[in-house]
Amino acid sequence: MMGAMALIECVPNISEGRRTEVVEACAEAIRRTSGVKLLDYSSDASHNRSVLTMAGDGPALEQAVLALYDAAIPQIDLRAHTGEHPRLGAVDVVPFVPIEGVTMEACVALARRVAEAVAARFQVPIFLYEEAASTPARRNLEDIRRGEFEGLAAKMARDEWRPDFGPAQPHPSAGASVMGARVPLIAYNINLATDRLDVAKKIAAAIRLSSGGFRFVKAMGVRVEDRNLVQVSMNLTNYPKTPIFRVFEVVRREAARYGVAVLESEIVGLVPSAALIDAAQYYLQLERFGEDQLLENKLRKAME
Amino acid sequence: MMGAMALIECVPNISEGRRTEVVEACAEAIRRTSGVKLLDYSSDASHNRSVLTMAGDGPALEQAVLALYDAAIPQIDLRAHTGEHPRLGAVDVVPFVPIEGVTMEACVALARRVAEAVAARFQVPIFLYEEAASTPARRNLEDIRRGEFEGLAAKMARDEWRPDFGPAQPHPSAGASVMGARVPLIAYNINLATDRLDVAKKIAAAIRLSSGGFRFVKAMGVRVEDRNLVQVSMNLTNYPKTPIFRVFEVVRREAARYGVAVLESEIVGLVPSAALIDAAQYYLQLERFGEDQLLENKLRKAME
Repeated sequence: MMGAMALIECVPNISEGRRTEVVEACAEAIRRTSGVKLLDYSSDASHNRSVLTMAGDGPALEQAVLALYDAAIPQIDLRAHTGEHPRLGAVDVVPFVPIEGVTMEACVALARRVAEAVAARFQVPIFLYEEAASTPARRNLEDIRRGEFEGLAAKMARDEWRPDFGPAQPHPSAGASVMGARVPLIAYNINLATDRLDVAKKIAAAIRLSSGGFRFVKAMGVRVEDRNLVQVSMNLTNYPKTPIFRVFEVVRREAARYGVAVLESEIVGLVPSAALIDAAQYYLQLERFGEDQLLENKLRKAME
Repeated sequence: MMGAMALIECVPNISEGRRTEVVEACAEAIRRTSGVKLLDYSSDASHNRSVLTMAGDGPALEQAVLALYDAAIPQIDLRAHTGEHPRLGAVDVVPFVPIEGVTMEACVALARRVAEAVAARFQVPIFLYEEAASTPARRNLEDIRRGEFEGLAAKMARDEWRPDFGPAQPHPSAGASVMGARVPLIAYNINLATDRLDVAKKIAAAIRLSSGGFRFVKAMGVRVEDRNLVQVSMNLTNYPKTPIFRVFEVVRREAARYGVAVLESEIVGLVPSAALIDAAQYYLQLERFGEDQLLENKLRKAME
């Protein structure tokens, strides 16, 4: 039953955002894989990079990722690649995200399995990251990618940067890939009832990891020009560990310090239901609550 | 697509809670109906009443309800029925509850369709209630059921109590049925950090409809003996109109009036996800949020 329901999201980033026909061929490779749905894909020309979003169960996603490498490797040569976004490889990053009926552990195992298969078939070295990381030093994508493709051969010559799978040197044209498992990201903004940009910037600094704030918050203060107000714009990278409600309450408290109120907040794009249900539990002081008390879940399971 | 996904809950109450073999035959009639799942059933001997919970799509539930009447009508004779719980008929109440992929309007239409079919086949008069009610006087179950089976013939002799479907007199043994559509009920308790029962009782009186409170709240103050504290015990009968978070905030405010804090709250049984997501939206001051932003919903739909 669990296997039949397993729903995993996979969001490969490829180092091609200009040649439409190459991106299209990669998208088509995913579309042709049965059991996988290509949900979205978009390219950024200045980054020279595309993000493809697909979903399916483990075995189907494994086939789709292999098909994606098959389409990308002959077409994308990092030696001739330019673009603003940092990158290590032709297929640069491949995260697996558990959505429903599947654990993080199962997605870590899937990432390892796919990494092994890709390394064996394409001779591309793979670094495991985030929840799949083999050491804490490899948890963060930024740390693995530092030095980029151009510095990769020198980096990999050092013992601590031997890949988790595949050859000890970069693939000549395709570099290396970063593969792993992570929770869904949440893009979350809090709009303040003020036009004082310094307030938004100070609050952003207070809550983000890089300046002493929460472990899983990236934040900046920005102006929302058309509305004459400022915004704390955030990425919450691990909502079970740094939950929305805690960030919201600290932002509200920090804003009050400057005599400023929270006007509203907004989720950009998608959010896991659990992140909002966690917030309801917090504010309503709900105790002894379990996911099996959610009516739709219960009935959906019963009907299967 | 919508039709394939429609998930409706139906919770018939029958006037038999003592003769196991009769209840079992009714349960079996539902189990035998294809496309319907019997989720739960339980009997109360002192009430002499059983509650059966099933789910399915509209057409399947219609067949299951007809099968239930088929099993119940020959076996349950209201002329010989005793029990503490008020009742009008052998199959006493049949609510349809929209769960997922279906509107309240569709459930109202379903209730009317089933009512018509039952009335035609079994010559049982049917009163429509709640969202399906034909007049405001018939919205509340208690108003329709007042006078019970014993007073039904006299009540129906009055013009304003002509049934919505079926004969103008009660069925000799099966009385009448109340059928309709409603939102899911939420059983919700708030525990107070005190053992003062008078505080719980005063708060319950402040928030319930019957003494001037919220339209869709039933509440009482009770003692939780084994924990040395008191509780405001509630039924929220229409969470979109009287939402959990508003009730919670008023209870918290009223408790503070007596120097008492809210210790915790709890959901008893099942709760629609939407009721908790509404609470998150309220507390996080979320604007421009739509159900299509829930990750699992979006992916589940895409995979279908």
